[in-house]
Amino acid sequence: MNNHIVIVGGGPAGIIAALTAKSVYLEKSVLLIKEIGDGVIPCAIPYMIHTLNDPKENALGNLPLDKAGVEILVDTAVGLDTREKLLSLKSGQIIAFEKLILATGSMPVEPSIPGIHKQGVFRIEKSLSATTMIREKAKTAKHIVIIGGGFIGAEFADEIARGSQSTVHIIEIMPKLLTAAFDDEFCDAAEKELTGLGVLVHTRRKVVSINGGDRVESVRLDNGDELSADMVIVGIGGRPNVDLARRAGLLLTEGGSIWVDAYMRTKNKDIFAIGDCAVKRDFFTRQEVPVWLASTATAEARIAGTNLYGLRALRQIQGTISAFSTRLGNLSLASAGMIGRTCIHEEFSFVTGQATAPDRHPGFLPGATPLTVKLIFAKRDGVLLGGQMSGGPSVGELINAVAVGIQMRLNVRELDMMQIATHPLLTPAPTVHPLINAAHQALAELRKSS
Amino acid sequence: MNNHIVIVGGGPAGIIAALTAKSVYLEKSVLLIKEIGDGVIPCAIPYMIHTLNDPKENALGNLPLDKAGVEILVDTAVGLDTREKLLSLKSGQIIAFEKLILATGSMPVEPSIPGIHKQGVFRIEKSLSATTMIREKAKTAKHIVIIGGGFIGAEFADEIARGSQSTVHIIEIMPKLLTAAFDDEFCDAAEKELTGLGVLVHTRRKVVSINGGDRVESVRLDNGDELSADMVIVGIGGRPNVDLARRAGLLLTEGGSIWVDAYMRTKNKDIFAIGDCAVKRDFFTRQEVPVWLASTATAEARIAGTNLYGLRALRQIQGTISAFSTRLGNLSLASAGMIGRTCIHEEFSFVTGQATAPDRHPGFLPGATPLTVKLIFAKRDGVLLGGQMSGGPSVGELINAVAVGIQMRLNVRELDMMQIATHPLLTPAPTVHPLINAAHQALAELRKSS
Repeated sequence: MNNHIVIVGGGPAGIIAALTAKSVYLEKSVLLIKEIGDGVIPCAIPYMIHTLNDPKENALGNLPLDKAGVEILVDTAVGLDTREKLLSLKSGQIIAFEKLILATGSMPVEPSIPGIHKQGVFRIEKSLSATTMIREKAKTAKHIVIIGGGFIGAEFADEIARGSQSTVHIIEIMPKLLTAAFDDEFCDAAEKELTGLGVLVHTRRKVVSINGGDRVESVRLDNGDELSADMVIVGIGGRPNVDLARRAGLLLTEGGSIWVDAYMRTKNKDIFAIGDCAVKRDFFTRQEVPVWLASTATAEARIAGTNLYGLRALRQIQGTISAFSTRLGNLSLASAGMIGRTCIHEEFSFVTGQATAPDRHPGFLPGATPLTVKLIFAKRDGVLLGGQMSGGPSVGELINAVAVGIQMRLNVRELDMMQIATHPLLTPAPTVHPLINAAHQALAELRKSS
Repeated sequence: MNNHIVIVGGGPAGIIAALTAKSVYLEKSVLLIKEIGDGVIPCAIPYMIHTLNDPKENALGNLPLDKAGVEILVDTAVGLDTREKLLSLKSGQIIAFEKLILATGSMPVEPSIPGIHKQGVFRIEKSLSATTMIREKAKTAKHIVIIGGGFIGAEFADEIARGSQSTVHIIEIMPKLLTAAFDDEFCDAAEKELTGLGVLVHTRRKVVSINGGDRVESVRLDNGDELSADMVIVGIGGRPNVDLARRAGLLLTEGGSIWVDAYMRTKNKDIFAIGDCAVKRDFFTRQEVPVWLASTATAEARIAGTNLYGLRALRQIQGTISAFSTRLGNLSLASAGMIGRTCIHEEFSFVTGQATAPDRHPGFLPGATPLTVKLIFAKRDGVLLGGQMSGGPSVGELINAVAVGIQMRLNVRELDMMQIATHPLLTPAPTVHPLINAAHQALAELRKSS
């Protein structure tokens, strides 16, 4: 079999890399090898419990790949000979390639808690069968304990509390929920929403054991509390899946990811790595960061897919922006770039500005929600470092104005005088739009301090 | 009376200029002279008919000005002596100033149609009393004819058709509605929404006479059609209100606006003009354009308010972006920068890219709406010239990501590889976000054509 471009991994990164490669290199064949035959669940796993009617509705299908002329093989890559450019599969098949893209993703971290393998304890995996099992169990469980108060944990808590009669606990080791993406005031607002839904939030707490017989019956915390539990969901994050790369001798980073250059190339120029398995570097510090997002993965996939046979498109935007959004209770929250806590930790000098206004105008319009924007700028040159916001669903796209600004190195003086599209039914008033007013506040701070 | 900074005009531009000046020049007094005592209606005039309960809810109050220490005088400026720096008011009072900002706004254009002064024919004015009269009449009228198919006309048609039993006609001289802001496919989508609400749309039509006795009874079109009408709303746009500036001998432009430099200064460095009365230059061509938006006005107000006593803040972003959004029927529409029709007229070489995806993911989630984005880039260097979109309410803020990109001169290659924040409940999927995919399509076009 004479393959040109081979991609290992059927998640968002693998799919976008395949589609990009096929659109850029019309004359090359593209083969995608995916492990999960019954459908990959790329996103929205929490919302499969109640919000979505049918788990199959959320599976990533093969239709766009078929239409583009990408070949698909359901199999597992078990060996990689980087010199001979051969991939060996679990089925015994050997695949030769000209160019290889590894998009092997990440795997959920399993904490070393006694009892973690009892029945009723679930990790979050991305196959249709695994997510369907969580869905079925969550519909009938009476006492659910969620370990981990990041996005995935908070979203599971929200979804379950909305639709179930069960008690829902969420256990977080840090002082607040969502501390990786938000400063305290936004974490507090998120916690308030979950509490409002009846979720019992335990911060600064660790699970020391999962107890019961074959099945989980309770969970013990480090303060001695014993919580009844017939279901435990572990959502404490992931780690890069680099088994194939490690065995092949590809260079790994300190953080355990596949090392790649700015064009997603490993040390072998015919082998690329993208998505959760490839090293992520922070946009501002260039340090390795454990942030795995589909938005970053797909951007990397486009870079790799374009540059397989020589660098055609210079990578003009580098590093992970960490652009997040979520919805908890009635509040949407979003964050992009640096937060205050990280700025302090990384010793950035910064100023902040914050502003609030109704997200429709006048604020008496039905459905109007207060929109709060906090912006962070470098103290000396006024460059936008990050933004956080809470409000109605419009923050989901407003954060992308911030993300574009960060990537374009927008200055506070530019943002302060920027023209912003507004409409009574869709946005805050032009006189008080918090994106502009937060910049104006920060500029006043900057003047005071200089 | 010893005044430092005097502002004429109580609309969004005047208010933001006053607040900015007060925050930048702490030691200076700021006096705002406003003509309308009973409340200015800055925006959302169409939505006062049914959506808002009480017209007063929409009046721009004095509270932020009072809190900031801005003095307010309800009077009309009738004379300006630019040499002696004196303003004479209708009441007979003479006001001396160090620095003057003219924010005298615009006035509705009155077409020269026979019968235009009959009872039941309304212009759109920004006072509480005038808007209340429209509201009262629209609630009882049986046959309403709206002259003008731009934003204001389309929004009145939408609002009235939603809440009233009356017949609603909209008459537009151009081949489609909203042609100033959208290319054909978006105009068609807007028309479809209005038709769906029962609005009778007449394009390529002119009103030749308004007939009846003292009161309007019918409207005659240029094709001979006679439409019954007990109310006519004229929304064909505005013209700058420059009477005071003209009498004072300030330089006016060919288009009839007050000439200002990049810092909103007239030829007299102590007199500034901002908002609808000051000249608007297109961001890309620098030609004078008749686009009057509160977003531009407030950006100008911040520039003027900051630079009154010498240029402190360089104006880094120049020209009008024309960033619009609206909601008609169940469709939100937004536009920023150049549209294809204007590019052709101005002889820009350009490529376009277009993409559609559900605005939640998976698309089966309740409330998901198809989001379509069309982007326009300069053919040679790939710089973003404009964007148009239709979909759910999230386009109201997504267009601001485009507006930021235009102002930062974002390149198609940068946007194609951009990281975008996504969330199942708030945005399209990262694999198919139309903002990125439209850029990807345009890049493919660019490659083909180069």
